[in-house]
Amino acid sequence: MITRREKTPIMHRIVEHNGVVYFGGVLADNLNGVSMGSQTTQICAKLDKLLAHVGSDKSKLISATLFITDMSQKQEMNEAWTSWLEAQDLPTRATIGVSDLGQDALIEVVVTAVK
Amino acid sequence: MITRREKTPIMHRIVEHNGVVYFGGVLADNLNGVSMGSQTTQICAKLDKLLAHVGSDKSKLISATLFITDMSQKQEMNEAWTSWLEAQDLPTRATIGVSDLGQDALIEVVVTAVK
Amino acid sequence: MITRREKTPIMHRIVEHNGVVYFGGVLADNLNGVSMGSQTTQICAKLDKLLAHVGSDKSKLISATLFITDMSQKQEMNEAWTSWLEAQDLPTRATIGVSDLGQDALIEVVVTAVK
Repeated sequence: MITRREKTPIMHRIVEHNGVVYFGGVLADNLNGVSMGSQTTQICAKLDKLLAHVGSDKSKLISATLFITDMSQKQEMNEAWTSWLEAQDLPTRATIGVSDLGQDALIEVVVTAVK
Repeated sequence: MITRREKTPIMHRIVEHNGVVYFGGVLADNLNGVSMGSQTTQICAKLDKLLAHVGSDKSKLISATLFITDMSQKQEMNEAWTSWLEAQDLPTRATIGVSDLGQDALIEVVVTAVK
Repeated sequence: MITRREKTPIMHRIVEHNGVVYFGGVLADNLNGVSMGSQTTQICAKLDKLLAHVGSDKSKLISATLFITDMSQKQEMNEAWTSWLEAQDLPTRATIGVSDLGQDALIEVVVTAVK
Protein backbone atom coordinates (compact mmCIF):
# COMPACT_ATOMS: atom_id res chain seq x y z
CA MET A 1 0.00 0.00 0.00
CA ILE A 2 1.17 3.50 -0.87
CA THR A 3 0.41 6.40 1.47
CA ARG A 4 0.84 9.88 0.04
CA ARG A 5 0.92 13.14 2.03
CA GLU A 6 1.45 16.87 1.53
CA LYS A 7 0.18 17.27 -1.99
CA THR A 8 1.41 20.17 -4.13
CA PRO A 9 0.40 20.94 -7.74
CA ILE A 10 3.26 18.76 -9.04
CA MET A 11 3.95 16.09 -6.39
CA HIS A 12 3.32 14.64 -3.00
CA ARG A 13 6.10 15.73 -0.69
CA ILE A 14 5.91 12.45 1.23
CA VAL A 15 5.20 8.94 -0.07
CA GLU A 16 5.37 5.87 2.17
CA HIS A 17 5.58 2.24 1.18
CA ASN A 18 6.47 -0.79 3.27
CA GLY A 19 8.00 1.22 6.10
CA VAL A 20 10.19 3.37 3.86
CA VAL A 21 9.41 7.05 3.44
CA TYR A 22 10.39 8.89 0.26
CA PHE A 23 10.55 12.68 0.18
CA GLY A 24 10.44 15.13 -2.69
CA GLY A 25 13.33 17.51 -3.21
CA VAL A 26 13.49 20.19 -0.50
CA LEU A 27 14.62 23.75 -1.15
CA ALA A 28 15.02 26.58 1.34
CA ASP A 29 12.24 29.17 1.49
CA ASN A 30 14.50 32.20 1.85
CA LEU A 31 16.88 32.09 -1.09
CA ASN A 32 17.78 35.58 -2.23
CA GLY A 33 21.27 36.53 -1.09
CA VAL A 34 21.32 33.59 1.33
CA SER A 35 24.45 31.43 1.61
CA MET A 36 24.48 27.67 1.05
CA GLY A 37 25.04 27.04 4.73
CA SER A 38 21.99 29.06 5.67
CA GLN A 39 19.90 27.44 2.93
CA THR A 40 20.98 24.04 4.27
CA THR A 41 19.91 24.97 7.80
CA GLN A 42 16.51 26.01 6.48
CA ILE A 43 16.18 22.72 4.59
CA CYS A 44 17.05 20.73 7.71
CA ALA A 45 14.30 22.52 9.65
CA LYS A 46 11.83 21.70 6.87
CA LEU A 47 12.94 18.06 6.93
CA ASP A 48 12.33 17.95 10.70
CA LYS A 49 8.73 18.97 10.08
CA LEU A 50 8.21 16.56 7.18
CA LEU A 51 9.70 13.68 9.16
CA ALA A 52 7.51 14.51 12.17
CA HIS A 53 4.48 14.46 9.88
CA VAL A 54 4.93 10.70 9.39
CA GLY A 55 6.05 9.93 12.94
CA SER A 56 9.71 9.71 12.00
CA ASP A 57 12.69 11.92 12.83
CA LYS A 58 16.19 12.77 11.67
CA SER A 59 17.72 9.78 13.47
CA LYS A 60 15.95 7.51 10.98
CA LEU A 61 17.31 8.84 7.71
CA ILE A 62 18.59 6.20 5.30
CA SER A 63 20.02 8.11 2.35
CA ALA A 64 20.54 11.67 1.19
CA THR A 65 21.38 13.21 -2.15
CA LEU A 66 22.55 16.82 -1.94
CA PHE A 67 22.46 18.71 -5.22
CA ILE A 68 24.45 21.93 -5.00
CA THR A 69 25.25 24.65 -7.48
CA ASP A 70 28.51 25.94 -6.01
CA MET A 71 31.04 23.35 -4.85
CA SER A 72 33.15 26.13 -3.27
CA GLN A 73 30.53 26.44 -0.52
CA LYS A 74 30.55 22.73 0.27
CA GLN A 75 32.44 23.06 3.54
CA GLU A 76 29.89 25.51 4.93
CA MET A 77 27.11 23.17 3.82
CA ASN A 78 28.84 20.23 5.50
CA GLU A 79 28.95 22.14 8.77
CA ALA A 80 25.22 22.85 8.64
CA TRP A 81 24.48 19.22 7.75
CA THR A 82 26.65 17.68 10.46
CA SER A 83 25.44 20.18 13.06
CA TRP A 84 21.93 18.97 12.40
CA LEU A 85 22.60 15.24 12.65
CA GLU A 86 24.11 13.11 15.40
CA ALA A 87 27.27 11.42 14.13
CA GLN A 88 25.91 7.92 14.72
CA ASP A 89 22.77 8.69 12.69
CA LEU A 90 24.37 10.06 9.53
CA PRO A 91 22.71 8.60 6.41
CA THR A 92 24.53 7.73 3.19
CA ARG A 93 25.24 10.80 1.11
CA ALA A 94 26.14 11.91 -2.38
CA THR A 95 26.94 15.55 -3.11
CA ILE A 96 26.49 16.44 -6.76
CA GLY A 97 27.39 19.77 -8.33
CA VAL A 98 24.66 20.73 -10.78
CA SER A 99 23.98 23.72 -12.99
CA ASP A 100 20.55 25.00 -11.97
CA LEU A 101 18.16 24.44 -9.07
CA GLY A 102 15.98 27.46 -9.80
CA GLN A 103 16.55 31.16 -9.13
CA ASP A 104 18.94 31.74 -6.19
CA ALA A 105 18.73 28.12 -4.99
CA LEU A 106 22.17 26.82 -4.01
CA ILE A 107 21.13 23.44 -2.62
CA GLU A 108 18.29 20.94 -2.95
CA VAL A 109 18.12 17.84 -0.73
CA VAL A 110 16.41 14.50 -1.44
CA VAL A 111 16.19 11.98 1.41
CA THR A 112 14.65 8.65 2.32
CA ALA A 113 13.89 7.53 5.87
CA VAL A 114 12.36 4.78 7.94
CA LYS A 115 9.23 5.32 10.02
CA MET B 1 15.12 -12.24 -4.95
CA ILE B 2 15.96 -9.82 -7.75
CA THR B 3 14.04 -9.95 -11.03
CA ARG B 4 15.57 -8.12 -13.97
CA ARG B 5 13.84 -7.30 -17.25
CA GLU B 6 14.47 -5.46 -20.52
CA LYS B 7 18.20 -5.89 -20.84
CA THR B 8 20.23 -3.41 -22.89
CA PRO B 9 24.01 -3.46 -23.46
CA ILE B 10 24.55 -1.32 -20.33
CA MET B 11 21.64 -2.04 -17.95
CA HIS B 12 18.35 -3.71 -17.24
CA ARG B 13 15.60 -1.15 -17.69
CA ILE B 14 13.55 -2.78 -14.92
CA VAL B 15 14.73 -4.40 -11.68
CA GLU B 16 12.29 -5.66 -9.04
CA HIS B 17 12.96 -6.52 -5.44
CA ASN B 18 10.54 -7.08 -2.58
CA GLY B 19 7.60 -5.48 -4.35
CA VAL B 20 9.48 -2.34 -5.38
CA VAL B 21 10.30 -1.74 -9.03
CA TYR B 22 13.32 0.33 -10.02
CA PHE B 23 13.62 1.78 -13.52
CA GLY B 24 16.62 2.99 -15.49
CA GLY B 25 16.69 6.56 -16.73
CA VAL B 26 14.19 7.14 -19.54
CA LEU B 27 14.83 9.51 -22.45
CA ALA B 28 12.50 10.41 -25.31
CA ASP B 29 13.11 8.68 -28.65
CA ASN B 30 12.50 11.74 -30.81
CA LEU B 31 14.88 14.40 -29.57
CA ASN B 32 16.06 16.61 -32.40
CA GLY B 33 14.27 19.95 -32.32
CA VAL B 34 11.70 18.59 -29.87
CA SER B 35 10.64 20.72 -26.89
CA MET B 36 10.92 19.58 -23.28
CA GLY B 37 7.16 19.26 -23.00
CA SER B 38 7.01 16.93 -25.98
CA GLN B 39 10.01 14.93 -24.77
CA THR B 40 8.26 14.55 -21.41
CA THR B 41 5.09 13.28 -23.08
CA GLN B 42 7.15 10.70 -24.98
CA ILE B 43 8.84 9.61 -21.74
CA CYS B 44 5.48 9.21 -20.00
CA ALA B 45 4.26 6.93 -22.82
CA LYS B 46 7.44 4.85 -22.47
CA LEU B 47 6.91 4.64 -18.71
CA ASP B 48 3.35 3.40 -19.28
CA LYS B 49 4.77 0.50 -21.31
CA LEU B 50 7.54 -0.29 -18.84
CA LEU B 51 5.10 -0.22 -15.91
CA ALA B 52 2.67 -2.48 -17.79
CA HIS B 53 5.52 -4.91 -18.39
CA VAL B 54 5.66 -5.68 -14.67
CA GLY B 55 1.92 -5.51 -14.05
CA SER B 56 2.05 -2.04 -12.55
CA ASP B 57 0.79 1.31 -13.79
CA LYS B 58 1.25 5.04 -13.33
CA SER B 59 -1.01 5.15 -10.27
CA LYS B 60 1.63 3.17 -8.39
CA LEU B 61 4.64 5.45 -8.76
CA ILE B 62 6.54 6.15 -5.54
CA SER B 63 9.26 8.63 -6.50
CA ALA B 64 10.51 10.51 -9.52
CA THR B 65 13.71 12.39 -10.26
CA LEU B 66 13.50 14.65 -13.30
CA PHE B 67 16.85 15.76 -14.67
CA ILE B 68 16.44 18.66 -17.08
CA THR B 69 18.89 20.75 -19.07
CA ASP B 70 16.86 23.94 -19.43
CA MET B 71 15.04 25.22 -16.36
CA SER B 72 13.24 27.83 -18.51
CA GLN B 73 11.11 25.04 -19.99
CA LYS B 74 10.10 23.66 -16.60
CA GLN B 75 6.53 24.98 -16.75
CA GLU B 76 5.87 23.19 -20.03
CA MET B 77 7.36 20.02 -18.59
CA ASN B 78 5.18 20.33 -15.48
CA GLU B 79 2.10 20.51 -17.68
CA ALA B 80 3.03 17.33 -19.51
CA TRP B 81 3.80 15.56 -16.22
CA THR B 82 0.61 16.59 -14.44
CA SER B 83 -1.52 15.88 -17.52
CA TRP B 84 -0.23 12.31 -17.41
CA LEU B 85 -0.86 11.63 -13.73
CA GLU B 86 -4.00 11.85 -11.62
CA ALA B 87 -3.52 14.42 -8.86
CA GLN B 88 -4.06 11.88 -6.07
CA ASP B 89 -1.37 9.59 -7.54
CA LEU B 90 1.48 12.08 -7.90
CA PRO B 91 4.77 10.59 -6.64
CA THR B 92 7.48 12.53 -4.81
CA ARG B 93 9.58 14.58 -7.20
CA ALA B 94 12.87 16.40 -7.49
CA THR B 95 13.66 18.48 -10.56
CA ILE B 96 17.37 19.00 -11.06
CA GLY B 97 18.93 21.23 -13.70
CA VAL B 98 21.95 19.44 -15.15
CA SER B 99 24.45 20.20 -17.88
CA ASP B 100 24.27 17.28 -20.30
CA LEU B 101 21.88 14.38 -20.91
CA GLY B 102 23.25 13.51 -24.34
CA GLN B 103 22.73 15.17 -27.73
CA ASP B 104 19.41 17.08 -27.90
CA ALA B 105 18.03 15.45 -24.74
CA LEU B 106 16.28 18.04 -22.55
CA ILE B 107 14.91 15.68 -19.89
CA GLU B 108 15.64 12.26 -18.39
CA VAL B 109 13.30 10.69 -15.84
CA VAL B 110 14.12 8.10 -13.16
CA VAL B 111 11.21 6.55 -11.23
CA THR B 112 10.42 3.84 -8.72
CA ALA B 113 7.04 2.16 -8.37
CA VAL B 114 5.15 -0.56 -6.55
CA LYS B 115 3.80 -3.62 -8.33
CA MET C 1 16.01 -1.53 12.00
CA ILE C 2 18.73 0.55 10.37
CA THR C 3 22.31 -0.71 10.30
CA ARG C 4 25.00 1.84 9.47
CA ARG C 5 28.63 1.08 8.58
CA GLU C 6 31.81 2.85 7.47
CA LYS C 7 31.33 6.20 9.13
CA THR C 8 33.07 9.26 7.70
CA PRO C 9 32.84 12.85 9.03
CA ILE C 10 29.83 13.52 6.78
CA MET C 11 28.06 10.19 6.22
CA HIS C 12 27.92 6.46 6.65
CA ARG C 13 29.10 4.86 3.43
CA ILE C 14 26.70 1.93 3.94
CA VAL C 15 23.19 1.91 5.41
CA GLU C 16 21.03 -1.21 5.47
CA HIS C 17 17.32 -1.50 6.01
CA ASN C 18 14.98 -4.43 5.41
CA GLY C 19 17.44 -6.30 3.19
CA VAL C 20 18.26 -3.33 0.98
CA VAL C 21 21.70 -1.74 1.16
CA TYR C 22 22.17 1.93 0.30
CA PHE C 23 25.63 3.30 -0.50
CA GLY C 24 27.01 6.82 -0.42
CA GLY C 25 28.44 8.31 -3.59
CA VAL C 26 31.74 6.67 -4.57
CA LEU C 27 34.60 8.57 -6.20
CA ALA C 28 37.94 7.20 -7.41
CA ASP C 29 40.95 7.76 -5.15
CA ASN C 30 43.40 8.59 -7.94
CA LEU C 31 41.87 11.48 -9.83
CA ASN C 32 44.54 13.80 -11.17
CA GLY C 33 45.06 13.27 -14.89
CA VAL C 34 43.12 10.01 -14.74
CA SER C 35 40.56 9.23 -17.48
CA MET C 36 36.91 8.49 -16.79
CA GLY C 37 37.39 4.86 -17.72
CA SER C 38 40.18 4.45 -15.20
CA GLN C 39 38.23 6.34 -12.52
CA THR C 40 35.29 4.01 -13.16
CA THR C 41 37.49 0.94 -12.75
CA GLN C 42 38.74 2.30 -9.43
CA ILE C 43 35.17 2.94 -8.29
CA CYS C 44 34.12 -0.61 -9.22
CA ALA C 45 36.97 -2.01 -7.10
CA LYS C 46 35.83 0.15 -4.18
CA LEU C 47 32.26 -1.05 -4.64
CA ASP C 48 33.47 -4.67 -4.53
CA LYS C 49 34.97 -3.99 -1.10
CA LEU C 50 31.92 -2.11 0.19
CA LEU C 51 29.58 -4.85 -1.01
CA ALA C 52 31.75 -7.54 0.57
CA HIS C 53 31.61 -5.62 3.84
CA VAL C 54 27.88 -6.40 4.11
CA GLY C 55 28.06 -9.91 2.69
CA SER C 56 26.81 -8.86 -0.73
CA ASP C 57 28.52 -8.68 -4.12
CA LYS C 58 28.22 -7.08 -7.53
CA SER C 59 25.70 -9.67 -8.74
CA LYS C 60 23.18 -8.22 -6.30
CA LEU C 61 23.09 -4.61 -7.42
CA ILE C 62 19.60 -3.16 -7.91
CA SER C 63 20.14 0.35 -9.23
CA ALA C 64 22.96 2.68 -10.21
CA THR C 65 23.14 6.40 -10.86
CA LEU C 66 26.31 7.50 -12.65
CA PHE C 67 27.03 11.21 -12.45
CA ILE C 68 29.66 12.23 -14.98
CA THR C 69 31.24 15.54 -15.89
CA ASP C 70 32.22 14.80 -19.49
CA MET C 71 29.69 13.01 -21.68
CA SER C 72 32.32 12.62 -24.41
CA GLN C 73 34.04 9.96 -22.28
CA LYS C 74 30.83 7.96 -21.76
CA GLN C 75 31.80 5.13 -24.11
CA GLU C 76 35.03 4.47 -22.21
CA MET C 77 33.10 4.54 -18.94
CA ASN C 78 30.53 2.10 -20.35
CA GLU C 79 33.32 -0.33 -21.21
CA ALA C 80 34.70 -0.21 -17.68
CA TRP C 81 31.22 -0.66 -16.22
CA THR C 82 30.20 -3.58 -18.43
CA SER C 83 33.60 -5.26 -18.02
CA TRP C 84 32.99 -5.28 -14.29
CA LEU C 85 29.48 -6.74 -14.33
CA GLU C 86 28.09 -9.94 -15.82
CA ALA C 87 25.46 -9.09 -18.43
CA GLN C 88 22.69 -10.92 -16.59
CA ASP C 89 23.41 -8.98 -13.39
CA LEU C 90 23.34 -5.44 -14.77
CA PRO C 91 21.33 -3.10 -12.49
CA THR C 92 19.13 -0.25 -13.69
CA ARG C 93 21.16 2.78 -14.64
CA ALA C 94 20.89 6.50 -15.26
CA THR C 95 23.85 8.46 -16.56
CA ILE C 96 23.61 12.16 -15.80
CA GLY C 97 26.01 14.82 -17.04
CA VAL C 98 26.68 17.26 -14.21
CA SER C 99 28.88 20.29 -13.77
CA ASP C 100 31.09 19.54 -10.77
CA LEU C 101 31.99 16.46 -8.72
CA GLY C 102 34.99 18.03 -7.03
CA GLN C 103 38.50 18.69 -8.30
CA ASP C 104 39.50 16.29 -11.13
CA ALA C 105 36.58 13.92 -10.46
CA LEU C 106 34.98 12.80 -13.72
CA ILE C 107 32.51 10.28 -12.30
CA GLU C 108 30.67 9.54 -9.05
CA VAL C 109 28.56 6.42 -8.66
CA VAL C 110 25.59 5.84 -6.32
CA VAL C 111 24.21 2.30 -6.04
CA THR C 112 21.72 0.21 -4.09
CA ALA C 113 21.98 -3.55 -3.62
CA VAL C 114 20.41 -6.52 -1.92
CA LYS C 115 22.22 -8.51 0.75
